[in-house]
Amino acid sequence: MPGFHVVPTNLATAARLHVPEFSPGSVWLAGAGPGDPGLLTLYALHALNTADVVLHDALVSPDILALIATPRRHSVGKRAGGARTHQLRINQSLVSLARAGHRVLRLKGGDPLIFGRGGEEALALASAGVPFRIVPGISAGIGGTAGAGIPLTHRTLARSVVFATGHDAQGGLPDDLDFVALARTDVVVFYMALRQADLIATRLIAAGRAPDEAIAFVSDATTPRQRVIEATLATAGAVAARLDPHAPTLIVAGPVLALRAMIAPLQQATPMTLEPAPYAVAGGVP
Amino acid sequence: MPGFHVVPTNLATAARLHVPEFSPGSVWLAGAGPGDPGLLTLYALHALNTADVVLHDALVSPDILALIATPRRHSVGKRAGGARTHQLRINQSLVSLARAGHRVLRLKGGDPLIFGRGGEEALALASAGVPFRIVPGISAGIGGTAGAGIPLTHRTLARSVVFATGHDAQGGLPDDLDFVALARTDVVVFYMALRQADLIATRLIAAGRAPDEAIAFVSDATTPRQRVIEATLATAGAVAARLDPHAPTLIVAGPVLALRAMIAPLQQATPMTLEPAPYAVAGGVP
Repeated sequence: MPGFHVVPTNLATAARLHVPEFSPGSVWLAGAGPGDPGLLTLYALHALNTADVVLHDALVSPDILALIATPRRHSVGKRAGGARTHQLRINQSLVSLARAGHRVLRLKGGDPLIFGRGGEEALALASAGVPFRIVPGISAGIGGTAGAGIPLTHRTLARSVVFATGHDAQGGLPDDLDFVALARTDVVVFYMALRQADLIATRLIAAGRAPDEAIAFVSDATTPRQRVIEATLATAGAVAARLDPHAPTLIVAGPVLALRAMIAPLQQATPMTLEPAPYAVAGGVP
Repeated sequence: MPGFHVVPTNLATAARLHVPEFSPGSVWLAGAGPGDPGLLTLYALHALNTADVVLHDALVSPDILALIATPRRHSVGKRAGGARTHQLRINQSLVSLARAGHRVLRLKGGDPLIFGRGGEEALALASAGVPFRIVPGISAGIGGTAGAGIPLTHRTLARSVVFATGHDAQGGLPDDLDFVALARTDVVVFYMALRQADLIATRLIAAGRAPDEAIAFVSDATTPRQRVIEATLATAGAVAARLDPHAPTLIVAGPVLALRAMIAPLQQATPMTLEPAPYAVAGGVP
């Protein structure tokens, strides 16, 4: 094939990277991606390797938590419905741990700023004068849908995609979501929306989407437990009721769903896996 | 601090990861993220290390291209305005190279499925019977805004964020973008939209956004050349005209922009850098 040649690449490329220092007394607010450890960024892996203490959410996948060698990692997450006092306590812990001179890793599922409340933590650190780094992660809406074989913005089918949260601080559907805007956007992805699936579907239909429009529930995306269940807006509530309410689940609507049947069969999606650790890994300490 | 203990983490965690095989005769469609090599995923780095041939876009940052040790990497990218025949030729190259038994890495800036045409390539590979893996990357709209200190979905300010493309195949603003939907969404991020900034701003105002609403242009996000320029919808066109038209640029609008002044000053955002290579790296071959 003219113009293309085959030359082995260098196995040691990563050794040439200079990593900015994770300084004692600072906090890295990092995303762990949707689940597959292979979707960690180099920064996130570096932070896992060098942090003195790791505070993580319930949404960080078990395979990634198992990478943390310390038995002193801390689960501080609450799924949908975390109270405001709880978030303030996390903010305070981040500040105190940094002031005590630790390298503090705050690890979140997906991306820290996309429905991850990382902004609140960044503001708390900034106002306390604690230096921090925001380390983006693969957001579930992007990485999880890719793992399911859904090309979110396939040309000719989609010019725009909207990400919305399916729950507010009390676990209900946020009352300030503009369903006219959502319904008029080519592709709609709801995060953590399983419990509100019926209401979301009803309101999308009321705002103009067709009741027989295909939707997909993508649960535990990019993990060995990934499930993709198709439904329609009309059947969304009934289908959602049969799914595991504890699995982190995206709801996806849009014409690009039709491509999944062509893409998924030849797509390789086995996640990275871990060798068993040579030591016991303790569970999170609440 | 009760409940928190400090234990060093294991420096060798990554060695415990089993990477799915990048098989000869297969293609990995991978995102390189917005620019900072530290935002590469473990999969992307693995693919850079093991690919026989790399076909990359113009949007992949120079620091990441420099990681590819082979002088046989190929630039196949065209910025805004790539013709359909051009895309078909890339699809064909991917199929031919894979059928010749190579490990083919198709590397794109950002994420391959978010305005990256990865879906078209996945369809071409699927219909040719070539196995492939889709490796999500940090999309510029997420990683680039984080690098600029903008928390896209800060609670109380934003329940939804929409990503839209600022150009169609001919380089103009897509005529099927629904500006009513965009204007009614809390946070709006346009990709590759610098040339259409004036028109985008005009149409957002016509659809109901305030002319004095703050916007930000984020160029070359997460690289040493990153620039963040603030403007308003009313001044967008005039400000855009003074910016480098060749720098990949996001346009961001939404109330979360107000938080940037608080977050950016204490945020550490120095990217990873590369030691000079011990060998010459050839430029891309068109």
